[in-house]
Amino acid sequence: MTDEPIYDIAHLAHLELRTPTFEQSRRFFIDVMGMTQSGEKGDSVYLRAWDDYERYTLKLTASKTSGMAHVAFRTRSPQALERRAAALKGSGFDVGWTDGDLGHGKTFVCKDPDGHVIELYYETEWYDPPPELKPALKNQAQRYPARGCNVRRLDHFNGLAVDVKACREFFQNYLGFRLTEQIVMDDGTEAGMWLTATNKTYDFAYTRDATGTKGRFHHITYALDSREDILRAADVFLEHGVFIETGPHKHAIQQTFFLYVYEPGGNRVEVACPGARLILAPDWKPIRWSEAERKKGQAWGLQTIKSFHTHGTPPVPGIAES
Amino acid sequence: MTDEPIYDIAHLAHLELRTPTFEQSRRFFIDVMGMTQSGEKGDSVYLRAWDDYERYTLKLTASKTSGMAHVAFRTRSPQALERRAAALKGSGFDVGWTDGDLGHGKTFVCKDPDGHVIELYYETEWYDPPPELKPALKNQAQRYPARGCNVRRLDHFNGLAVDVKACREFFQNYLGFRLTEQIVMDDGTEAGMWLTATNKTYDFAYTRDATGTKGRFHHITYALDSREDILRAADVFLEHGVFIETGPHKHAIQQTFFLYVYEPGGNRVEVACPGARLILAPDWKPIRWSEAERKKGQAWGLQTIKSFHTHGTPPVPGIAES
Amino acid sequence: MTDEPIYDIAHLAHLELRTPTFEQSRRFFIDVMGMTQSGEKGDSVYLRAWDDYERYTLKLTASKTSGMAHVAFRTRSPQALERRAAALKGSGFDVGWTDGDLGHGKTFVCKDPDGHVIELYYETEWYDPPPELKPALKNQAQRYPARGCNVRRLDHFNGLAVDVKACREFFQNYLGFRLTEQIVMDDGTEAGMWLTATNKTYDFAYTRDATGTKGRFHHITYALDSREDILRAADVFLEHGVFIETGPHKHAIQQTFFLYVYEPGGNRVEVACPGARLILAPDWKPIRWSEAERKKGQAWGLQTIKSFHTHGTPPVPGIAES
Amino acid sequence: MTDEPIYDIAHLAHLELRTPTFEQSRRFFIDVMGMTQSGEKGDSVYLRAWDDYERYTLKLTASKTSGMAHVAFRTRSPQALERRAAALKGSGFDVGWTDGDLGHGKTFVCKDPDGHVIELYYETEWYDPPPELKPALKNQAQRYPARGCNVRRLDHFNGLAVDVKACREFFQNYLGFRLTEQIVMDDGTEAGMWLTATNKTYDFAYTRDATGTKGRFHHITYALDSREDILRAADVFLEHGVFIETGPHKHAIQQTFFLYVYEPGGNRVEVACPGARLILAPDWKPIRWSEAERKKGQAWGLQTIKSFHTHGTPPVPGIAES
Repeated sequence: MTDEPIYDIAHLAHLELRTPTFEQSRRFFIDVMGMTQSGEKGDSVYLRAWDDYERYTLKLTASKTSGMAHVAFRTRSPQALERRAAALKGSGFDVGWTDGDLGHGKTFVCKDPDGHVIELYYETEWYDPPPELKPALKNQAQRYPARGCNVRRLDHFNGLAVDVKACREFFQNYLGFRLTEQIVMDDGTEAGMWLTATNKTYDFAYTRDATGTKGRFHHITYALDSREDILRAADVFLEHGVFIETGPHKHAIQQTFFLYVYEPGGNRVEVACPGARLILAPDWKPIRWSEAERKKGQAWGLQTIKSFHTHGTPPVPGIAES
Repeated sequence: MTDEPIYDIAHLAHLELRTPTFEQSRRFFIDVMGMTQSGEKGDSVYLRAWDDYERYTLKLTASKTSGMAHVAFRTRSPQALERRAAALKGSGFDVGWTDGDLGHGKTFVCKDPDGHVIELYYETEWYDPPPELKPALKNQAQRYPARGCNVRRLDHFNGLAVDVKACREFFQNYLGFRLTEQIVMDDGTEAGMWLTATNKTYDFAYTRDATGTKGRFHHITYALDSREDILRAADVFLEHGVFIETGPHKHAIQQTFFLYVYEPGGNRVEVACPGARLILAPDWKPIRWSEAERKKGQAWGLQTIKSFHTHGTPPVPGIAES
Repeated sequence: MTDEPIYDIAHLAHLELRTPTFEQSRRFFIDVMGMTQSGEKGDSVYLRAWDDYERYTLKLTASKTSGMAHVAFRTRSPQALERRAAALKGSGFDVGWTDGDLGHGKTFVCKDPDGHVIELYYETEWYDPPPELKPALKNQAQRYPARGCNVRRLDHFNGLAVDVKACREFFQNYLGFRLTEQIVMDDGTEAGMWLTATNKTYDFAYTRDATGTKGRFHHITYALDSREDILRAADVFLEHGVFIETGPHKHAIQQTFFLYVYEPGGNRVEVACPGARLILAPDWKPIRWSEAERKKGQAWGLQTIKSFHTHGTPPVPGIAES
Repeated sequence: MTDEPIYDIAHLAHLELRTPTFEQSRRFFIDVMGMTQSGEKGDSVYLRAWDDYERYTLKLTASKTSGMAHVAFRTRSPQALERRAAALKGSGFDVGWTDGDLGHGKTFVCKDPDGHVIELYYETEWYDPPPELKPALKNQAQRYPARGCNVRRLDHFNGLAVDVKACREFFQNYLGFRLTEQIVMDDGTEAGMWLTATNKTYDFAYTRDATGTKGRFHHITYALDSREDILRAADVFLEHGVFIETGPHKHAIQQTFFLYVYEPGGNRVEVACPGARLILAPDWKPIRWSEAERKKGQAWGLQTIKSFHTHGTPPVPGIAES
């Protein structure tokens, strides 16, 4: 009998994104994505999709550049938070405890091998909508906005990493994430990984940074209910003059129906629909994709666009994107 | 700090349904629902939806009557199975160990307070499709059938119970299920409960049996990817002369988009779409629906059909259904 | 060889609806339906869906009561307008020429046997969107609003009539409409008719007024692109507290996917999706539905709601609706 | 006042396609597209979509090569047929009368300036389904198959032509088609045209043949009810190993949601969804697309695939496709 898995991480909680075009980015997330501002502090605003249960899932911070300032995961219990902190202490990846931020309590901070900042916390503030945003059905976090893309909930994020394998081992060993799919090159190196702590097929992915730069960000993804919602989002992006990078189409990996755009600050944003696909097996065998398989492109034959491999945030000086 | 939750049940695994019209029922599940027969033994056939990862999720057994013979849950590990068996031993709900069945290994059997038979197991057989059913994408269990309703995966079941509260406590205390929504009558009695062991908003529900009969069955549900898939399924049922009881419509409780029909043997079958709704909060506060709220009907105003409260399987002699 | 059909009417152009709650009704059409105000004159505002090519398709007029003030059809040519006027002159249904209204030129007015006022015109004003409403694609009338239900274009209307047969003969003989479906009662009287001048399966319907009152109105319908759009509209109506009368469901007659609500002024409003269904046959044989067939309810079994037979506008004093 | 338009053509009726792989092509249309065989004669089978009202919309003929043998349009009346024949007689485009074919009566044959063979007829055989294919709803031509892509009805075809302008003038002047959109190059030559005789935005299109070869064929298109249906069709094509050339995506021209594949005989086949878009204006002003506009790619940015400009049937010897 093998050891039992770790069940300490509940789910991806929120991201902090930096943007050099703060007000335009804020308006993009509210007007085009259909999100709601639920807080403001210092140089940041806090934003949420209509069915996120926590107060926010995106902290947007004015900055000189773009990229991800940190990612946060909520643990399943106070005890789980202590266990993860204890495991990380002295590992070299640990940073230490903070008092938290708007909306969440005490937090343990660490960094993955690529330098992305990770926050872990348990105590959180459930979103309490003001009267005009109260939903008609009490099992819903907030009223459906009927504005822009109407994103429903945070789904996942995608980081870039120089050493994908090292990151995979970090997230598996220290945080208990499970690998569901991966890309392994002909030379045996790992070029991509999809990890989950839930029944979602992935809570985040890391893909190799072609520029060899550490700590960069690939995209944040909000989920919508149907593929038709994604197609309608494409119409909305088109009408708003938002740059559509690729999609809508269906990924071969994870079969997610996807659409990628750039928000005004340069960060890549995805709207996606997983359909009814879930990973229910507790002993899921990771799907391994080879170089040859990846060259076939996406599920229905769309070739992966070149910028998908080169555009990350913040930009790397002196590197052309496509 | 409260005790930590139990994480021993991985997911709802399969149901065994009895039918007095075996061949018609079998054809219904294959031709109309779009399922695949993946085994046969004694008086039973074993059936699966195209993205179920285990060999089957429905065991259909020829019988003099209808109803659910047993329900099975897969545990998260061998250790988890032993822990649940140990917890149940001597509780009065335990039945004992068996060697399992086609497709799964050693099994601990118990009964809930209403007498429904429950099997717990860990060892399972992953579905291995024959060449003509191999999917184009390797992260999919089986080829998309493009036949009938094309149900994707087992979603949940609904049992009937005389004492819903006793059953709730049984599933929470012995098996670690979490309550996500419930119906509580004005007199304080519980009339319905929705429980989950996953991030799905429910793995099963129990509602009160209006006839006061123990151990009966309300419905089995298969998930589809979109609401459009459910609408198309309605067309398919219509063309096949299948009795549509109610729907398509959206439940107020859990917001599931639903459609209910009766299979030839009399068992109620649902096809449903949850959209992107998940329960990610590890400390989800159960939603409680009152009598008055239930009287408002479903989400968009459809009144709950009377037979929904009276039709269960097996039928109760001498009780008219509507 | 039979005579050739008349091809003089191009399409349903607009309706004028009266409302006793002018400002609430106006806000309903703009905020909830997602329409755009494109004109204002006297006690009226003019409204349009985002893909209507004419300046407006709905004239909303403040009034002491509700109901339809008039309906307008555009002819296929100036000659066609003259031919219809000539045919109607002296028929007893003719009212005479007017100079038109905001957005359209000279108009011939007549009344059907039930007293509904009908305007015919050819000269029209194409909608010219202001800069902020210019669409990204030049083959689209206006920018997609991404607000409320986002209705696309006027689809049809439904009038009530005391003598459906007389109205049918009027529209067929004087205006050249073709009958595509109808309801004929066991006693041979006609209870409903669906007529078209286009390849749409109907441009309008008349059903029998159960109160025996002349000139009343049943509903106006805007088309959406998909059934999923209608389901989402149901969510939007729910969130706005709009009364949903019935649906979403699929009509047996014409197979339209429908959803009916009441606007604040009491007029019934439908959002609907026809799918890809068209009447292409120039010699379409009308489908005749019997009383028994109508009693089966809608396509998937939903019983027709009682108010559907009793609620019309303006209300009839002393008649309870349901 | 300008002359009134010609209203003599009712709609696109059927195509005859040649295939060098007869049995594989036949199985493709039945098993993958979900069509029904409704006739057989000589080297041909006759096929139909489930809501085509005529007996068939595709005649598939065994041949040494691929391409379109002829296209047929149904007229609005017997008189309309005589008028078109009279107009064509002596024009140099006329071929003459025939007795018709399986399913339709006397036929006037002509050729467009590019040499495509065109049949015009009025008398037709309405499809009468055998008992097992009778639909549940009497306003539907045939039972919904629930097999493969389930194409609903013939929508349009696309021919290739050396002289697009000459073809446009032929179809406008002799047959009364109306131009809805077109591509005009910087040098003033016409590279594409979309023509309609109905309220559909086009019944067929012609685009310039890059090889300079006359009489070739680009694709045949069947309509589905929703964009979700097209996405599901993509899954079905993927599972059947059918070559997907491009899509699903949304055309900028006409805004059709498209998906292109090659049937086994090499002919390009499209499944498409127009949504609720119709041309209702009798005086629609053609949309003109420039070279620069076409270079922007499709609606959401997908670049037009190179083979879309080079692959036509029959193949041109010595010309590489991409």
